[in-house]
Amino acid sequence: MLPVLADSVRLADDGVHILDRRVFPAERVWVRCRTVEDVARAVEDMVTQSSGPYFAVLWGMVLAAREAADLEPAAARAYLDRAAARLTATRRTNNHLRKAVRAVLSTVDDTGWRTGAELEAAALAGARAGDERYRTRSRLLGEFTAELLPDSGSVLTHCWADLYLVELVLALGRAGKRIGFVCTETRPYLQGARLTAATLVEMGVDTRVITDGMGAAVLAAGEVDALVTAGDRVTMDGHVVNKIGTLGLAVAAHAFEVPFLAMVQAPDRNAATAADVPIEHRSGDEWLTGGYPVFDITPPRFVTLVVTDRGPFDPRKLADYYREAP
Amino acid sequence: MLPVLADSVRLADDGVHILDRRVFPAERVWVRCRTVEDVARAVEDMVTQSSGPYFAVLWGMVLAAREAADLEPAAARAYLDRAAARLTATRRTNNHLRKAVRAVLSTVDDTGWRTGAELEAAALAGARAGDERYRTRSRLLGEFTAELLPDSGSVLTHCWADLYLVELVLALGRAGKRIGFVCTETRPYLQGARLTAATLVEMGVDTRVITDGMGAAVLAAGEVDALVTAGDRVTMDGHVVNKIGTLGLAVAAHAFEVPFLAMVQAPDRNAATAADVPIEHRSGDEWLTGGYPVFDITPPRFVTLVVTDRGPFDPRKLADYYREAP
Repeated sequence: MLPVLADSVRLADDGVHILDRRVFPAERVWVRCRTVEDVARAVEDMVTQSSGPYFAVLWGMVLAAREAADLEPAAARAYLDRAAARLTATRRTNNHLRKAVRAVLSTVDDTGWRTGAELEAAALAGARAGDERYRTRSRLLGEFTAELLPDSGSVLTHCWADLYLVELVLALGRAGKRIGFVCTETRPYLQGARLTAATLVEMGVDTRVITDGMGAAVLAAGEVDALVTAGDRVTMDGHVVNKIGTLGLAVAAHAFEVPFLAMVQAPDRNAATAADVPIEHRSGDEWLTGGYPVFDITPPRFVTLVVTDRGPFDPRKLADYYREAP
Repeated sequence: MLPVLADSVRLADDGVHILDRRVFPAERVWVRCRTVEDVARAVEDMVTQSSGPYFAVLWGMVLAAREAADLEPAAARAYLDRAAARLTATRRTNNHLRKAVRAVLSTVDDTGWRTGAELEAAALAGARAGDERYRTRSRLLGEFTAELLPDSGSVLTHCWADLYLVELVLALGRAGKRIGFVCTETRPYLQGARLTAATLVEMGVDTRVITDGMGAAVLAAGEVDALVTAGDRVTMDGHVVNKIGTLGLAVAAHAFEVPFLAMVQAPDRNAATAADVPIEHRSGDEWLTGGYPVFDITPPRFVTLVVTDRGPFDPRKLADYYREAP
């Protein structure tokens, strides 16, 4: 059975319901977003994160279609564009949001809709296609990554790889591989301790939580067979942009000759190199003192393989991803 | 003026008073230890740490002399040995405790004491000499380290380097060097956020706290001129045993060509290599789940210089420390 975090952003008649990851797993609170603006604020307030905002934008665009239902077609279409701009501006580093918008708008524009009901139906079809596409690609990623792991052993992971992690665990199960996980706490939001560890335990996986500072010792001691994380983005020249802390683990994995597998659906054609990725800084008020970067950037020399929905690639040869048949 | 943590274990008529570092700086609570056993338990319970146990053992041995004052000389001397064994068994990785015991017992044995009062006076003289020696050596360490830093800039530190840090800051001030500090939180006990940051602020130093996972990004960005930590022990072949998390920072510093200066009074002649150092594991109950190592071991290839009270040494040439005139 799927863990709850694999289906934690849901469309309903009264809006979009988002599981509040800020308090999970201590509490299971669902935030109801009645409007596009509610969805945007929930994403900005970190109610959900990782793949959550992608699904929130998909279903948020369906809310936008509902809100535009009584407008003239041209005004309705312009309303969708404004909603799209509002929703994609919520998290700058996450480029899945643009894909979610595109999934909905491309279906809307390919459809000869005229009434508000037809517009909503088109948006819903686009959102469902976007949902299915993301899940299918995650499944492929999970399978490709599972193939790279031994029949038994242990993996170190950082932060919360979300559906990629869930699909990796499911693929390992199908392949009969017995892999335990070591999860970093991932300060300051503790996504590793709260989301990753709770979900792994929910899925029956052998799980150990360590503080962020222990990763290098775990790698040096040979306690894990691989470092596996998601990549929030991977640039075309192989830089892995991911949760702050990934860089330190990747450098240590490299120093102690443990492979680092970075999971991403696809390298980012819009980012030739790291300079093309704006790094989100969050206010220190949320945490201790001074601002801090949410992500760090691991250079390709510390990345073993980038695992995509088309298989694993050398981080120095990511252009091959786009050379292959789609 | 010295910060409070530079004088946080004090001998009084009614026992040894130890500032409780577990709740500092939120609260300033002093734990009163009336007996040797109280002192041992306080050290085991982590009321104090870093150099704290050294001073606790010095003054604890004075309590032992008081407790033995009414015994026959042979029985009194045996009582001191039992107290020494009890006190040194409290923290296995910290070899300063044996030195504290030796400082007291060597003075006791060099003295022609016969009465209980003379025994206590001898123990007190030994403890005071041990106190003075530790502070003098820390001062030298601070000065040697300050010489290695630029006139202005920034230093990354991990955990709490205690008197070495205090003396480094004082030496930087005397030299007119303006150095800011970036401190890791140092989970799970947060010594960096609580002890280091609070003390640096108390001393008027520009201070920024980061989570443990941010160190590599700070090093990669060129935001600091050096990584400076204490070494709980340094083996004769240059392995630095220090608070868990040091290894990851040292590896990242090495990867991004930032020097790592490890401060230690002297390399440990009793530890030829890392295998000679037992690593303390603490129960996971104190923290999350599963046991975890308190220290990690940084191999010499990731250490730039070991700074001692006789100056800085190449980690591969630590035997030179003992070749020089004492």
